[in-house]
Amino acid sequence: MFEIKSPRTDQVELLLDGKLLLRHSESAPALFLGRGREDIRMFRGNFDIRDRVDERLAPRLVSVEEGTLRFAHPDMEGDTLLRLSERYGLLYLEITCPDPTVNRLWLRLYAEPGEHLVGGGEQFSALDLRGRLWPIWTREQGVGRNKLTEITRLADALDGSGGDYYTTFFPQPTLVSSRLFFAHLENTEYAELDLREADYSEIALWSGKARFVFGAAGDYAGLLEKLTGLLGRQPVLPDWAMKGLWLGVQGGTERATALEKRCRDVGVDISAVWIQDWEGKRITSFGKRLQWDWRWNRELYPGLDKVIASEPDTAWMGYINPYLVEGGVLFQEAREKGYFVKNAAGGDYLFDFGEYDCGVVDLTMPEAFTWYKNVIKTNLINLGFRGWMADFGEYLPADAVCFSGSGRVLHNAWPVLWARCNREAVEEAGKLGQCVFFMRAGGAGSGKYSTLTWAGDQNVDWSEDDGLPSVITAALSLGMSGFGLHTCDTGGYTTLFHLHRDEELMLRWLEFSCFTPVMRTHEGNRPDSNVQLYDSERLLSAAARLTRIHDALLPYLKTCVKENARCGLPVMRPLFMNAPEEDRAYDHRLYSYLLGPDLLVAPVVEPGVDTRSVWLPEGEWIHLWTGTRYGGGEHTVPAPIGQPPVFRRADCADADLFDRLVRE
Amino acid sequence: MFEIKSPRTDQVELLLDGKLLLRHSESAPALFLGRGREDIRMFRGNFDIRDRVDERLAPRLVSVEEGTLRFAHPDMEGDTLLRLSERYGLLYLEITCPDPTVNRLWLRLYAEPGEHLVGGGEQFSALDLRGRLWPIWTREQGVGRNKLTEITRLADALDGSGGDYYTTFFPQPTLVSSRLFFAHLENTEYAELDLREADYSEIALWSGKARFVFGAAGDYAGLLEKLTGLLGRQPVLPDWAMKGLWLGVQGGTERATALEKRCRDVGVDISAVWIQDWEGKRITSFGKRLQWDWRWNRELYPGLDKVIASEPDTAWMGYINPYLVEGGVLFQEAREKGYFVKNAAGGDYLFDFGEYDCGVVDLTMPEAFTWYKNVIKTNLINLGFRGWMADFGEYLPADAVCFSGSGRVLHNAWPVLWARCNREAVEEAGKLGQCVFFMRAGGAGSGKYSTLTWAGDQNVDWSEDDGLPSVITAALSLGMSGFGLHTCDTGGYTTLFHLHRDEELMLRWLEFSCFTPVMRTHEGNRPDSNVQLYDSERLLSAAARLTRIHDALLPYLKTCVKENARCGLPVMRPLFMNAPEEDRAYDHRLYSYLLGPDLLVAPVVEPGVDTRSVWLPEGEWIHLWTGTRYGGGEHTVPAPIGQPPVFRRADCADADLFDRLVRE
Repeated sequence: MFEIKSPRTDQVELLLDGKLLLRHSESAPALFLGRGREDIRMFRGNFDIRDRVDERLAPRLVSVEEGTLRFAHPDMEGDTLLRLSERYGLLYLEITCPDPTVNRLWLRLYAEPGEHLVGGGEQFSALDLRGRLWPIWTREQGVGRNKLTEITRLADALDGSGGDYYTTFFPQPTLVSSRLFFAHLENTEYAELDLREADYSEIALWSGKARFVFGAAGDYAGLLEKLTGLLGRQPVLPDWAMKGLWLGVQGGTERATALEKRCRDVGVDISAVWIQDWEGKRITSFGKRLQWDWRWNRELYPGLDKVIASEPDTAWMGYINPYLVEGGVLFQEAREKGYFVKNAAGGDYLFDFGEYDCGVVDLTMPEAFTWYKNVIKTNLINLGFRGWMADFGEYLPADAVCFSGSGRVLHNAWPVLWARCNREAVEEAGKLGQCVFFMRAGGAGSGKYSTLTWAGDQNVDWSEDDGLPSVITAALSLGMSGFGLHTCDTGGYTTLFHLHRDEELMLRWLEFSCFTPVMRTHEGNRPDSNVQLYDSERLLSAAARLTRIHDALLPYLKTCVKENARCGLPVMRPLFMNAPEEDRAYDHRLYSYLLGPDLLVAPVVEPGVDTRSVWLPEGEWIHLWTGTRYGGGEHTVPAPIGQPPVFRRADCADADLFDRLVRE
Repeated sequence: MFEIKSPRTDQVELLLDGKLLLRHSESAPALFLGRGREDIRMFRGNFDIRDRVDERLAPRLVSVEEGTLRFAHPDMEGDTLLRLSERYGLLYLEITCPDPTVNRLWLRLYAEPGEHLVGGGEQFSALDLRGRLWPIWTREQGVGRNKLTEITRLADALDGSGGDYYTTFFPQPTLVSSRLFFAHLENTEYAELDLREADYSEIALWSGKARFVFGAAGDYAGLLEKLTGLLGRQPVLPDWAMKGLWLGVQGGTERATALEKRCRDVGVDISAVWIQDWEGKRITSFGKRLQWDWRWNRELYPGLDKVIASEPDTAWMGYINPYLVEGGVLFQEAREKGYFVKNAAGGDYLFDFGEYDCGVVDLTMPEAFTWYKNVIKTNLINLGFRGWMADFGEYLPADAVCFSGSGRVLHNAWPVLWARCNREAVEEAGKLGQCVFFMRAGGAGSGKYSTLTWAGDQNVDWSEDDGLPSVITAALSLGMSGFGLHTCDTGGYTTLFHLHRDEELMLRWLEFSCFTPVMRTHEGNRPDSNVQLYDSERLLSAAARLTRIHDALLPYLKTCVKENARCGLPVMRPLFMNAPEEDRAYDHRLYSYLLGPDLLVAPVVEPGVDTRSVWLPEGEWIHLWTGTRYGGGEHTVPAPIGQPPVFRRADCADADLFDRLVRE
């Protein structure tokens, strides 16, 4: 139930279920409108975004009629309306400024000191977003993501790809408050969540029209049920996906099957073989890259169709992205049919991907969308793939001219369109629930279409900003934003400069992914610089044991994944979901999470340690590997390699299942 | 002669001597007013400055009366007046917004594509400031000054001291246009020169009241005469200052005199011995630092008074800054007398200088000012010093409470007050023209008080951002801002991380400073990590020759310095002063300058080369070391060590003097 209150004549307040959402007065306005000019430059998915705000005005409240606040300002044509309406238990707030020259809007939500705000999509650098400004613009997450680190500086110096704390593939203008309401902005234009102030949160949008949705509930589970009711939920994963390991390999039929066999021979449960180079390769200075012309490369993968058909218990998986490389067969077809996004001059907008150029299929054009969906159906699904990485989606430049709009408005919507394209291909092939595609790019609505998010391109290191620890923060913030299935490149991906993956990192990362819905490895962009699972006896034997543990968890994981599909409760959950009053629980540096209702996982995210400190919410917890009981609070627990700190609730339905894990 | 024109009913234009200064219309306003809240944080002279503009309004032109443009906006109390008046050939534009809640102001000056804008005070990263935004706030220049360099990253990671392209000790809101007018803002609040647009230059100010001054002339010399008429000019330097080398040494009477002798014995002309540690030392992790209690340290410098008295031909020089270290005698006295700047709580505002705290003498309090001036007179001048480094002046925090205002308003004025304090001490001691103090911090008005600017703390490297080359840009931009006497730490200063000064750098830097008004060396913050003049036979012999050349230049330098004192023509001048129509001449990367009217100096600013490319303005130029004649344009010329590219005009008054230099 929403209420509009006017406690003083010059003040108006908006409440939802008794929770104050915003408060407006002449001396402390909640709404600002303005005129600005942006300058957005892209280089390979990294964006330099600048704004010049020429005017920023605080319109005055003119009247409060039933459900409508009317604002006016002498420097703007017409009255700006804030229309409130309730639908399906959610509050919609629509702002409409009729002045066509107004293209900036700021709404200030009421905030309290001590309030926590989480969400923002998939954020890698914080769970509680307060104190910082978070631009909402899908892009490369960056290499290093912290201007004070050497790796970030090197990447910035190389090609401006260092990123920053807020750069992410999957941003989403959604805030979930510890006062137990959420605020979500439906627009896709560039937005900012400015959470630097103690007494308000300001949401900026590059438009004169906005639609916000608010929901309130009695607990986080209730909130997420409402939020995912709005944004969509993911279907359950097929059993194979949650079992064993998805082995990421490359290099052709012979090598892939040989490595698959090698792993199986030592007892690693391989449920899927993921070959991202099924379409062929090209070598660039960045590393080995793929031939973006999405057709089975029979030279590299002779007999692939037969191999797939001959292994019904193994899911073979492929790769695709929305770009077509110049010179390819599909590029030629798309160009001839006029299916590419255009540049301002009306030509095909070609993107520099580093040593090659690509066109991007215009997913807003119905024929192009259908055509590309058919490429997925024909070339991937019909080949027998039971899943694929649906990569990229972040590169639509602001000045792109699409069939139904400009990049400026469509940029943040692109990953969702890309997800929909994959989803429809799967559905139309009758494979929903059997095929799994996984995406890194996303936005509001991805939850409805995508089947799995993976964390993108971590560095092959331990860094909090861009390494192993950051994946935990990403999974939890994404879960709180309404997308509950998360996985990652086990071992990390980005291998640049002095970085290379060592055995310890791979061991710890495997331990972590064992306690997530999906275990999948990636060789990285420079496979030869990284230790690989199949190259190390120690890794193979660790993987054999960890896949057994993962398999043993399957019944529990299935329940969790069903819960996510049913009511949007993410599989990996922040500790504050069970300790909402504990400020401590909102700190992403706990690097801990609940896997489903009853397991608490605290992966080791540092090298060279054999203990780690954990914080447990109130209750009684049993350490999985030793059976030791712990109460709530801070503890230092043993954490030798092979035994990441994992606890079960003392009292839980699957106690027996959990207690058997130590014997695997 | 200024004019207010109204070519269309909704448009008004302001012209000076026929040059369009600003153009206002409702669709393209020239004036904006607003309300903002700043957040300024200081850590050891490095500032983190953030602004939140809540409102930014474009007031409407209401009327144009005689010399007054009246603006109004419904969201602001009262009418804002732009009052124009002409005095002494300058145009004053005063903006007064009577609304006390308005604290932000933006004025857009008309600009043309292709127009060059120089000035901005002492800027290290560019001569032509167009294309970037330049905050005006005096502060540490930073270590590295380019976020893409390793040294900047290390300094940022250490303590946020990396700086950026715009960080400078001596910013000044003054623009000199290639359309041959200048615009100067007299306010001292935080300001920005936003020169990123093709069709206007926006000057932002954190105040609702502003006073701009404009001047126009037929050439740059005429402009600078007007600008320095407004801001002040420096007195001529005493002859000794322009002759020989000021030897920077430390470590006590015995060491200082021994090194002085060592240099003299091999023929280096030492005109001054500069001992920055005359007051004693303290060791910190940054390096050896000084004991900020400005009294002769008799333990370190026994018999100093007698040494000074016994060497009438040597100028002994000291050091002082506006801070007093906690625990010192002067600190105690200032504290008891209530002479320190206060914090918001009313206590003495102590600054962390890294391992020690200091109070800052309140230079706006007449008694404190007089007291500190007397410290200079008594402790420095009376000891016999003929000059000193008057260091610092940038550290006044925005929230400081001073006798006559807050740090927010006084911050940028502080270096000028500090200059005035030194100047009055010199004048009252009857030593003007004999004593020289040199400052790094500055602002508008420094020109009237300070006797010499030095470029501050370069890294001991070749970097364009913060090493040898940056000094040239600094000297030229400062000269174009109205301060015409510039010197630097020969060899650089900042020796941190992996940096250390090598012999080649010192040789090239000596060659450069030979062709500036003052040659002075500094051992750096970590003397033991740097090659020192007196430690190297090669350096000593180079210095002997270069001081002979410098001495031979004295008659010419005297003329240049007199010209600066008389009409504000800087001693070091950008090439565009003689080639105003050549776009090329505005590029700071020429790293070349005119020394006075007839010499063109192109110092070698790269390691490992023995030629360099130079660009000469039209005319005939004679290469000093070979006698080769060159016309205007691009040339590659020999530049072995010892022979920096220097050219004289073929036709010039001092041809004989210049031609004799090769024989020194």
